[in-house]
Amino acid sequence: MIKAGIIGATGYAGAELVRILLGHREAEIVWYGSRSYIDEKYAKVYGNMFRLVEDVCRDDRIEELAREADVIFTATPQGFLAGVLTEDILKNTKVIDLSADYRLKDVKVYEDWYKIEHKSPQFLEEAVYGLCEVNREQVRHARLVANPGCYTTCSILTAFPLVKEGLIDPDTLIVDAKSGTSGAGRGAKLPNLFCEVNENIKAYGVSVHRHTPEIEEQLGYGAGRQVTINFTPHLVPMNRGILATEYASLQKVKQPDGTLAIPTEEQVQAVYEKYYGKEYFIRLLGPGGCPETKWVEGSNFVDIGFQIDKRTGRIIMMGAIDNLVKGAAGQAVQNMNLMFGFKEQEGLALAPVFP
Amino acid sequence: MIKAGIIGATGYAGAELVRILLGHREAEIVWYGSRSYIDEKYAKVYGNMFRLVEDVCRDDRIEELAREADVIFTATPQGFLAGVLTEDILKNTKVIDLSADYRLKDVKVYEDWYKIEHKSPQFLEEAVYGLCEVNREQVRHARLVANPGCYTTCSILTAFPLVKEGLIDPDTLIVDAKSGTSGAGRGAKLPNLFCEVNENIKAYGVSVHRHTPEIEEQLGYGAGRQVTINFTPHLVPMNRGILATEYASLQKVKQPDGTLAIPTEEQVQAVYEKYYGKEYFIRLLGPGGCPETKWVEGSNFVDIGFQIDKRTGRIIMMGAIDNLVKGAAGQAVQNMNLMFGFKEQEGLALAPVFP
Amino acid sequence: MIKAGIIGATGYAGAELVRILLGHREAEIVWYGSRSYIDEKYAKVYGNMFRLVEDVCRDDRIEELAREADVIFTATPQGFLAGVLTEDILKNTKVIDLSADYRLKDVKVYEDWYKIEHKSPQFLEEAVYGLCEVNREQVRHARLVANPGCYTTCSILTAFPLVKEGLIDPDTLIVDAKSGTSGAGRGAKLPNLFCEVNENIKAYGVSVHRHTPEIEEQLGYGAGRQVTINFTPHLVPMNRGILATEYASLQKVKQPDGTLAIPTEEQVQAVYEKYYGKEYFIRLLGPGGCPETKWVEGSNFVDIGFQIDKRTGRIIMMGAIDNLVKGAAGQAVQNMNLMFGFKEQEGLALAPVFP
Amino acid sequence: MIKAGIIGATGYAGAELVRILLGHREAEIVWYGSRSYIDEKYAKVYGNMFRLVEDVCRDDRIEELAREADVIFTATPQGFLAGVLTEDILKNTKVIDLSADYRLKDVKVYEDWYKIEHKSPQFLEEAVYGLCEVNREQVRHARLVANPGCYTTCSILTAFPLVKEGLIDPDTLIVDAKSGTSGAGRGAKLPNLFCEVNENIKAYGVSVHRHTPEIEEQLGYGAGRQVTINFTPHLVPMNRGILATEYASLQKVKQPDGTLAIPTEEQVQAVYEKYYGKEYFIRLLGPGGCPETKWVEGSNFVDIGFQIDKRTGRIIMMGAIDNLVKGAAGQAVQNMNLMFGFKEQEGLALAPVFP
Repeated sequence: MIKAGIIGATGYAGAELVRILLGHREAEIVWYGSRSYIDEKYAKVYGNMFRLVEDVCRDDRIEELAREADVIFTATPQGFLAGVLTEDILKNTKVIDLSADYRLKDVKVYEDWYKIEHKSPQFLEEAVYGLCEVNREQVRHARLVANPGCYTTCSILTAFPLVKEGLIDPDTLIVDAKSGTSGAGRGAKLPNLFCEVNENIKAYGVSVHRHTPEIEEQLGYGAGRQVTINFTPHLVPMNRGILATEYASLQKVKQPDGTLAIPTEEQVQAVYEKYYGKEYFIRLLGPGGCPETKWVEGSNFVDIGFQIDKRTGRIIMMGAIDNLVKGAAGQAVQNMNLMFGFKEQEGLALAPVFP
Repeated sequence: MIKAGIIGATGYAGAELVRILLGHREAEIVWYGSRSYIDEKYAKVYGNMFRLVEDVCRDDRIEELAREADVIFTATPQGFLAGVLTEDILKNTKVIDLSADYRLKDVKVYEDWYKIEHKSPQFLEEAVYGLCEVNREQVRHARLVANPGCYTTCSILTAFPLVKEGLIDPDTLIVDAKSGTSGAGRGAKLPNLFCEVNENIKAYGVSVHRHTPEIEEQLGYGAGRQVTINFTPHLVPMNRGILATEYASLQKVKQPDGTLAIPTEEQVQAVYEKYYGKEYFIRLLGPGGCPETKWVEGSNFVDIGFQIDKRTGRIIMMGAIDNLVKGAAGQAVQNMNLMFGFKEQEGLALAPVFP
Repeated sequence: MIKAGIIGATGYAGAELVRILLGHREAEIVWYGSRSYIDEKYAKVYGNMFRLVEDVCRDDRIEELAREADVIFTATPQGFLAGVLTEDILKNTKVIDLSADYRLKDVKVYEDWYKIEHKSPQFLEEAVYGLCEVNREQVRHARLVANPGCYTTCSILTAFPLVKEGLIDPDTLIVDAKSGTSGAGRGAKLPNLFCEVNENIKAYGVSVHRHTPEIEEQLGYGAGRQVTINFTPHLVPMNRGILATEYASLQKVKQPDGTLAIPTEEQVQAVYEKYYGKEYFIRLLGPGGCPETKWVEGSNFVDIGFQIDKRTGRIIMMGAIDNLVKGAAGQAVQNMNLMFGFKEQEGLALAPVFP
Repeated sequence: MIKAGIIGATGYAGAELVRILLGHREAEIVWYGSRSYIDEKYAKVYGNMFRLVEDVCRDDRIEELAREADVIFTATPQGFLAGVLTEDILKNTKVIDLSADYRLKDVKVYEDWYKIEHKSPQFLEEAVYGLCEVNREQVRHARLVANPGCYTTCSILTAFPLVKEGLIDPDTLIVDAKSGTSGAGRGAKLPNLFCEVNENIKAYGVSVHRHTPEIEEQLGYGAGRQVTINFTPHLVPMNRGILATEYASLQKVKQPDGTLAIPTEEQVQAVYEKYYGKEYFIRLLGPGGCPETKWVEGSNFVDIGFQIDKRTGRIIMMGAIDNLVKGAAGQAVQNMNLMFGFKEQEGLALAPVFP
């Protein structure tokens, strides 16, 4: 039984970590960190945890926590972890960061998109991007894991195999993503009020959303070169779920008869299966399959389907996740499982809740 | 490992049974019965179960199933089980019925409220009303359990201790209940369309809802006499959850100083604790506590709070459940656990999902 | 064409006043007051008004406004109007107050329930309670109208005729009310976030909600004596709408044959028609009719239905309104129409929007 | 006062026609046609119309209706009007068809996409595509107007000026559209149940949706050549509203200094203003503006914004409408106004309802 501490336990992602870790047989939570609710009972902040969590919230002294815990999850605003991380901490404990501080290898890209100075770029090289299905082996040996963003997890996994195998031209990639409102956090802000979100849909952060460079960097590794894409997030009147609808031009590939032609449905599906066929958490719906966010709600699954449009030569790829699970806390626990040699599904055997 | 069969596995309650039993360590599902989807893959009917359930749906031959299964759940329309149940079936297997067929002891009351003939009243006496926290011992030895209705579970548990101990006058009881739409089932009916339910609230079945006599019968056992109440259900634009707001006049009870007076908050709370203090699935919020359906969503919990209004001499009791879990499938599994001597929480350690 | 000023134009009730007055042929808005958005374009605060309103928000200098406007609407927090109202203002203009400052005749009751000192009780006697269907004649001659609360409008109108005619015992009255979230205002508060409200229902302010004494006072006028009731509000995951489900014991009335008996459906309906049969904005659904908030959304209608439960001797009355229209801005305009001698429906011929 | 008949008055689009025409000062409804509810009171089918509409539903005898009415709206399934339309009817009355029967000029394209035979292609040439802002003059003189589809109205208007002026390459156009559930109609189908739609988002009809050729045909007129695009509709858990997010590669245009470069924000905005600057129903939000469906709800407005992404050389155009108003009934009335020489806004001065 390892000891886990959470800094930022009272945000939605932190709360989902609590829900998942409560059912984990190899880890126990020893620290519910929350700057806003110090000394308040956690179950007062999250009524669903009444009688399940008796602890009170503690502050965010990560150095003290590092001596107590085997693993620390930081579900904190951008810049927090970078501002406090030290070699001492990493010597004492493993860190899984749900913020963006260590996701981008290039500090300049980070500072350009996040508009803050990075206070400890010295750990950027060591940090492993915790997209388990892509970087599983590196994660196993990591001390510091940068847990991917919610949009990015969904966007990257949906397109990665086709980029890697050259079936699509990555520079034609357009990601039109739709997210439930929990992705906006628990801050009391006017645009997130029920009456503003309900019966409404809108795009936001068009062409400037911070998840863009993260998608580009990871797909760039797949493509073997720099990639530039369009990414447009939308706010949907639902609590959970991300759907990414992705468009790209198919590239001609060599056919069995030696000619060049755009890939068939079978060829696309074969590529998906090559990469994900054995992945427990990725469910391939096959050609024509349209994932629905409701079918993955509460679970760590990624559902992926696609449709080829021969008229335009494009493929429409679609991926769905629960933004708080595979898009945040679930993937963080999956990373923890890898880092500590636990069974990868431990604590994550969460059947999707429907309806 | 016992074998469980579900007849009516493709309704919402049946689907929730599937979700819960998949995580149960002592039971496995051997029969996904569904008259509407025979020979179709279950995971085609419920996309959330893709890759988790590989079985196809089978018909509703309960006699055949009885020879295969240790326990049968019937999540079927009223009248189905009464029409097919035989002594042979009960000799071979245990039956947990999620319909109303065996909930009311008096066949005439059943026929009056349900407007159908009861085809096998001979089992009414044997059937145990599976409200676990009230009838735990009888359930342990039952062959046939009548799983309580969703509204009734919430309505009864919220008021039962106060009725039983004479703190309230049961004939003044008014239950104003609010339910999510999954309680209306998965039938394709116009009033349950998204556009009809969303942004809307209405009462329905006012003074004639079939759960009324069920509440009255059970509270009558508590009161030791016949009880007549008002029950008004409402349809709320949400998927899951029932909130029962219950009003009753407090009765004077003897005070420490020998006088008679309406009970204090402490006295009410003490009565609740006497009955539920050790119940895992009942969470007492105490005086002033207002349960929210979201805090129990996806779990088998019942949250109960109350408020005394000295100005009117009434108490307002409030109870919240997830209608598909404690109000249907969860309680059914809790009954199964009791009937087979499993740990009562087995398969039901479901932390509420928030948000 | 009269000139109307709004103080508090950027709350939800203020915004609904703007929407309604834009379609009014006898009034024009000359002042969009908003302490929070001074000098900002109104249409930046409410995007729906883009190109329909070109004005900028102004502050809340009511004395200046009183010299400019024929009528002032104050959609402001409790205490604001009482703190600034003067005889001079009332000499220059008419005032319709959407806050609670002048709703309760007894200043002590106000201060008990609202926990603030009343700064100008000298106007309490003059103020007319603007429940048009009950106080139409007084409203016509008023300088100062206290526009009723949203819950109270619905709760009072639904029960008033039966209280007035002695068909129900007012002390048995229980009002279980359900409201959409716009009733909570546009303040950025955590409990009103989308993720907290969506998929959730809860009671709040149980036995202490401030609309209680307002209902009691008005029904007391009908009953001819003091009345004490139970009132429980609930928050429903929808933007607009209030449904009040009201329970009361029927009182025996003299029957045609001279005997005493509880009233029949026809007798109840006759009483409703006596009071409301000619009211444009009240739609009587008749016995068994269950109003739905969606059927009145966006309109100034009050839909009322009822059901007699002979088993318990109680009647269940149900009323539905749009909380922002008949529960706030619509009724305010109806009051204005009466005060200025306009056609009562002017600006309020708003067919309900469905779905 | 002209006489209007509606065939298909009990679908959601028909019901919205009723709501709008009730407020129209030049037209009155003389026929509420509804095959499913013949002889039932219209207000029983739509409770919001209680006391506003006293008529009963009539059948769909269009020939009889044509002798009675000055204009007929057909809000009917595909194929209905084509199956009954005759020259006699058009001699007696004007027809505005909300179905797809006369939207596509090429009968083969119609039959390919709709999979039904077109029964009266002889009227295809005469029919005018009723996209008022584009075809205003032809509409004025039309006997038969094909009212555009909901998705198409939004998709075309958002991109048309930029296609027409050559600012974007139409073959790179990708339309990712999101619609509220009323677009799916009032049929009692399982996928449209509240519990299936709520808390869910999914794409559907990917690359095969029937609105695709309609968008292509109209944009083709703008481009002066055939155009092939990608169109992906999504179902969003809300009642009303369509948001179209459209992506296209910008084409270099001649700059003031004689060089070729991709257009600036100002140049794009200037083109939008050239086409829509004087249009009452089109509101240009300008560069960076992100329309929200809630801001147009209940109104006939189209809100359009855009963002240039210099990194990829693409433009993201966004348009929002209320699918039942500008996407159906509102535009149909706008067409009627043009055909009869009424003021174009008559009956359509509907301020958007918020929240």
